[in-house]
Order: sequence, then structure tokens, then C-alpha cells
Amino acid sequence: MAVQWDSLWIDGHLATMVPGADPCGAIRDAALAVRDGRIAWLGPRSALAGAPEALADAVHSLAGGWLTPGLVDCHTHLVFAGNRVAEFAARLGGEGYEQAARRGGGILATVAATRAAGSEALYDGAHRRLMALLAGGVTTVEIKSGYGLDLDTERRMLQVARQLGRDTGIGVRSTYLGAHALPPEYRGRPDAYLDFICDEVLPALAAEGLVDAVDAFHERIGFDTAQVGRLFRRAGELGLPVKLHADQLGDGGGAGLAAGFAALSADHLEYTGEAGAAALAAAGSVAVLLPGAFHTLQANRQPPVAALRRHGVPMAIATDCNPGSSPALSLPLMMNLACLRFGLNPAEALAGTTRAAAQALGLAHDRGTLEPGKRADFAIWDISEPAEICYWLGHHPLRQAVVGGRTIPTH
Amino acid sequence: MAVQWDSLWIDGHLATMVPGADPCGAIRDAALAVRDGRIAWLGPRSALAGAPEALADAVHSLAGGWLTPGLVDCHTHLVFAGNRVAEFAARLGGEGYEQAARRGGGILATVAATRAAGSEALYDGAHRRLMALLAGGVTTVEIKSGYGLDLDTERRMLQVARQLGRDTGIGVRSTYLGAHALPPEYRGRPDAYLDFICDEVLPALAAEGLVDAVDAFHERIGFDTAQVGRLFRRAGELGLPVKLHADQLGDGGGAGLAAGFAALSADHLEYTGEAGAAALAAAGSVAVLLPGAFHTLQANRQPPVAALRRHGVPMAIATDCNPGSSPALSLPLMMNLACLRFGLNPAEALAGTTRAAAQALGLAHDRGTLEPGKRADFAIWDISEPAEICYWLGHHPLRQAVVGGRTIPTH
Repeated sequence: MAVQWDSLWIDGHLATMVPGADPCGAIRDAALAVRDGRIAWLGPRSALAGAPEALADAVHSLAGGWLTPGLVDCHTHLVFAGNRVAEFAARLGGEGYEQAARRGGGILATVAATRAAGSEALYDGAHRRLMALLAGGVTTVEIKSGYGLDLDTERRMLQVARQLGRDTGIGVRSTYLGAHALPPEYRGRPDAYLDFICDEVLPALAAEGLVDAVDAFHERIGFDTAQVGRLFRRAGELGLPVKLHADQLGDGGGAGLAAGFAALSADHLEYTGEAGAAALAAAGSVAVLLPGAFHTLQANRQPPVAALRRHGVPMAIATDCNPGSSPALSLPLMMNLACLRFGLNPAEALAGTTRAAAQALGLAHDRGTLEPGKRADFAIWDISEPAEICYWLGHHPLRQAVVGGRTIPTH
Repeated sequence: MAVQWDSLWIDGHLATMVPGADPCGAIRDAALAVRDGRIAWLGPRSALAGAPEALADAVHSLAGGWLTPGLVDCHTHLVFAGNRVAEFAARLGGEGYEQAARRGGGILATVAATRAAGSEALYDGAHRRLMALLAGGVTTVEIKSGYGLDLDTERRMLQVARQLGRDTGIGVRSTYLGAHALPPEYRGRPDAYLDFICDEVLPALAAEGLVDAVDAFHERIGFDTAQVGRLFRRAGELGLPVKLHADQLGDGGGAGLAAGFAALSADHLEYTGEAGAAALAAAGSVAVLLPGAFHTLQANRQPPVAALRRHGVPMAIATDCNPGSSPALSLPLMMNLACLRFGLNPAEALAGTTRAAAQALGLAHDRGTLEPGKRADFAIWDISEPAEICYWLGHHPLRQAVVGGRTIPTH
């Protein structure tokens, strides 16, 4: 009989994350087969029709550990120059995030550093950070622009994101976040800036194939509802899905705004109320929770987890990696924070970095669960049960990451 | 002229952590020389009396980074068997730490697992965790017993601790924590257990050279003031310094009790008041803050940082690494938590894992700052300023660890 699979994983357990009786879709003492970079078969090992070596070219032992879908970090600002350590230290002396933003620190400090940096420096910094995420089991990452704001720097940021995907094999989705902050050259002229990004920047970058989605910072220190609406209509004309930074610092109706555009996701949501949760549910949008920013900004208002559960809104968890409000480089640590600060349980946290996170990127058909036909992206863990991924504080019990069926070095 | 030093570090900056005008005792563009495993000289590079190559056998470049004292993790329970993931998950469903302890989970679950484990398994698990701490810059660690409670298992835990130090070169201080919990065979007979540990276990282990200090869990679910006093008097007779788990779950006067025995440190201290802080100051005891346990137990009462500052009590920060209340394996993450949850500033956090932590182990004469004569234990960081060590969330910007002048592999 001909060998039918490229590789076969045995001697361990699967957390398929397929919804069902077990919250992690667990299959104990399981086997999983890969062909052409995709999952070809999975089930209890006892259902294997033959000796493993006769079925696959390569047989890998999980050594009693667990194989989960590769983690998906669905909200990052991974490409930037400089750091904001001085702002971090100042905030510990009492200065707030909004204060820092208003006096020209905050996002605009990173914009200045990023504009001044060469593409190679941007790449090197982001590559280092991507390797840190990978060491925590991340095999797909979203990367936003938004520290350039001008055409050239936004383009370079998105080109770096694409290049990182090509070089590492890690899945990269790039999001245009021109509406992140008002650049200094447009100070006092937000609508002129909207003209610029809607008429020039977004169409150009989309035509170059650099944009998978469009995002905006909807906040009293960001862009208002009319401005976001205008940008999102433009995105729709270009056939691009949208996402929104919503209700982080106050309830500005961001969740409802995102839902009105059938956004892939609404992110942050600390101040979202019952109506916002209901709107997200009706629109099929994912709620992306960002506990790294909650923690770093010493916030005390938690996102409406009970309402999101009640309305059946999928909850994703991401690092929000950025130099100001969330210098976070561990998705398992974000899962721990989501449990201990937001009250998620460990199975919800793992769904939040797999199934729900893939959905937040429009990739639910291709990854986020272990199912035949999906991309063979895995994280393999030295753990006794899936909850252990969330349990350690500052440690990744990761043994291996696999992308498209191939192991990639995690150090 | 003869070469006078074994090695010389240049092209970077020192955070000496010596008290003075700069909160980190910083020397920019510095040089540091090592001879016979100890710091021989340090100062501005411009003060070097000659070409580096003529002064030392080996010249190392810091490449613009920072060299700090090797970090000291002054409170861990690193040697244990099993994990308590199920308890972690149950707590996220609403069960409290005290409830778990009272129904026989908690510490006693780890006691059962540790008693049942072979020394080799205990060593392997602790070695893995020690390597994780090292990757965060830790070059000295305290390890407590207290998951055996019987003579044989307590001895094996302390032997494993000693062996870890010999094998890795990392400095290990071992603490006898027989008064951690009442073992099942003494249920209802705490004073008989005190007889046992004071008359049999502690004298035996001390005679074998396995004990550097004595600790106790003073708490309503632990041991009371009279019992701790009895143990500490016995420690004093044996010439051993003491430490105390104090005021974590309620103000039981633990800080004052520790101070009354001139304890090296009082640890946790969430419920310690002004009088306790004053007592610690008068006794010269260190306050050890354990934000990993605060975080993991979802506590909301913060230690009295303002009072500790007011009275000049040195504040150390440790992982409290243990499988129940703090599965923490990153001291830099604990520094981040101490800043963001307890309100320390980054310089205080770095003093808390160097100078103050060494003092909490009775090692202030030998390490914890960069000064001539002290052990050449360093952490070398790819950072722009010392505060950056606390800034990243789930990432160690560590380039290298050095113990006794020799680089040790961190992966």
C-alpha cells in the first residue's frame, strides 16, 4: 500500500478547538496526519488504519504533550522604531496615557521615530519581536501600519510586514491603520487628512496588494464617528473588510459603529455596553480583548465579558504589541491576563487565540481549529492539559511550532 | 606591563545600583574589570589606564547595552512535583485559595506529589524552572523546602537545591520551610508537629549543612505567632537567620513578629500597616514584595509601599515561584507587575531584584551591586536604559548572564 501522508503526529493529545461537548474539542491519545501542508486526517489513534510508519513518510511523537492550532495574534502594531520607555517611566510617576498623547508624546513620538528609520531597521526590530511571539506559539500574526501616516512610511511598514511573512513562513495579515492619529502636518485639519488617506493613500496601497483590512482608532483622542464612517465606506468600495479600535477610553458607541460596517472585529471594548455587545453579535463581528493594554495603562474598567458571552460574541485575545500602551510579546501571557484580569476561563482564552482570533482576521475557513483541509499550523506543548498554557506566568511550555506542516525554529 | 585583569567589559553602560544621585547608580560609557571571579575595578572608560587589550586577557563589548548586577530571586519554592493547573482552572470558576487549602487541595496537594516523586524527577523539574529564571537574568536564587514536611522529603528537596547550585554555577541559598503547612499525619496536632520540626528535622538538616535560613508561613491557614516564635527561637539557637511569610491574607502582625526576631526579610505584606513598616525599619529587615501571588490570587489589597518608603524599608521583589499561588518564572515580569500593580518606579524595581534582594538573603556584602570585591555576577541587556527591563511584557531583553566572571548559557 502506498504511503498516503507526508507526516503523522502520534503519542499525545489534540485540542482541536472545534466547538462541541469538550470546551477545547479535546481528543486524547490521538493522531493527526498532514499532506501538502494541510491537515489530511485526525482522530483517536485507535482509528488509524495501519502502522504509523506505513501511513506517512515522517512520524513524529508528541511525547505525551498536546498539539493545538498554531496561535493567532490578531491585533499587533509590530513594526515600529524606537521605544517609549521614558513615557512608561513617566507614567509610573503619575502621567496618564491621554496626557502623554496630548502633549505630543504617545503615538506621535513613535510616528516621528518610524518616519526617520530605514526599512532595514524597521524590519530588524519587527523580526526580533516576531521571533519572540513565535516562541509563544504564534504562527499567524496581524500587523498594522499607522506609525507612518504619510504615504511613503505607511507603504514601507506594510512592505516590511509582507516581507516578514515571506521570510519566516509565519502567516502575516496586514492592516492599514492610517486613521491611527492625526499627523503633525495635518494638525487642526482632520478632514483634510481624511481626504488624503481616502483618496490617495488607501487606494494606492490597496492597488499594490499591501492591505488585507482597514482599521481606525475611534476615540476622543482619535477619529470621530463621521470620519471613521467615511474611511470605512471607502474601504467597502475597495472591497476591503474593516476592524475598529473601539470604546477603550470611554463608551463612544464604537462597538455599534463597527457592527454597522459588519467589521471583522471591534477591539479593546472596555467601555462597551449591552447594546454594543448585541450589535456585535448581530453583525457577526468578533470582540478582540487586549489585556496587555489594560494592564500597561493601569486601567480598571473591564470589557463586558458577561454581556459578550450572553450574546454569543466570539472573544479573541491579542497582544496589541506596541511601544506605548502594550509592549507585550507573549500571547500565552495575554491569555493568563485575560483569565485573571477579565475573568475568562482557560478554554475561552485558548479559543480566543485560535478559533476566534482566526475569525477576527477573516481566516476562520483556513486556520484556528484542527480540521481536515485547514492549514497545518500547530503549536506543540509540554503540558498536562490545555489550561496549562495560561497557567505559567512568564514562561512558555512550547516544544515546537509547525507552519504549513513544517517545523520552524523557535529560538 | 603585565596584564592585570582576567576580563574587561567595555562599550556600554553600568547600572551599579550603588545608592547615590542616580537612582540606578548609572555610569555611562563605562568599563568593568574582573579578576579571580570578582569585580576588580569599574569606572568611566575614560579612566582606564591603557588600551583594553593590554589590561585584560579577554575584552568583551557590551555593544551599547547595559550591564547590571545579576538578578537575585530571593523567594522561591522552585523544587516541587506536579502542577496545580486544575486548581487554577477551578479558581477561575470561583473557588478561593483559602477554600482550596481548607478542602485539602492547595499546598497539601503539592506535598503529596512531592513526597511521591523521586529525587531525580524533583531535580529535573526544578532544573527546567531554574533555566527559565536564568533566561530572565537571575544568577542567585533562594529555594525553600516545605513540600515534604517529613524529614526525608525535606532533606531531599534541600539536597536538590544544593545540587542545582553545584551543577549550574548559579548561586543557590536554601531555606528550611518546614512550617509551611501542617502535614496530614499531624492533623489537629500542630504543637506535636512543632516538637517534631524543632527537635528533629531542623537540627538534623542544619547539621548536614543544608540550611541557610529558616522560614515559616504565619497566617490564619498557617502557623500562629506562638508557634512561629518557638521555631524562630530554635533557629536562633542553631545560629540560623529567619524569614517570614507575613500578612498576605490578613494583618496578623506578621511584620512585627518578623522584626522581633531581626528577620532577614518579611515577605508578602499586603495587609501590613504603618506600625509593621516601622518595625521592619527598626529591625533592618527587608520587605519582599511578591506581585506574582497578588496577581495569580486576584488579590486587591496592595502592600503598603508608601509606608515602606517613608520608613526606609528596602523593598525586594521575587517570583515566589510555586505551583499554586504564583507559577511565575520571570523576574523581569515581576518587576513589571511591581511597577504597574504596586506603584513602584522602575529604579525601585531594579533595586528590588538586586541590592535589596541580596540583602534579603544576607548576601549584601557579596552581591547585589557592582562594587570592587563583589562576586562578578552580571546580567547584560540589549536595552536603551535600565527601565526597559521592566517595560516589556513577556519578553527578556537579556543578552548574556555571567556568574563569577564566566558567561553561562541562557538557553
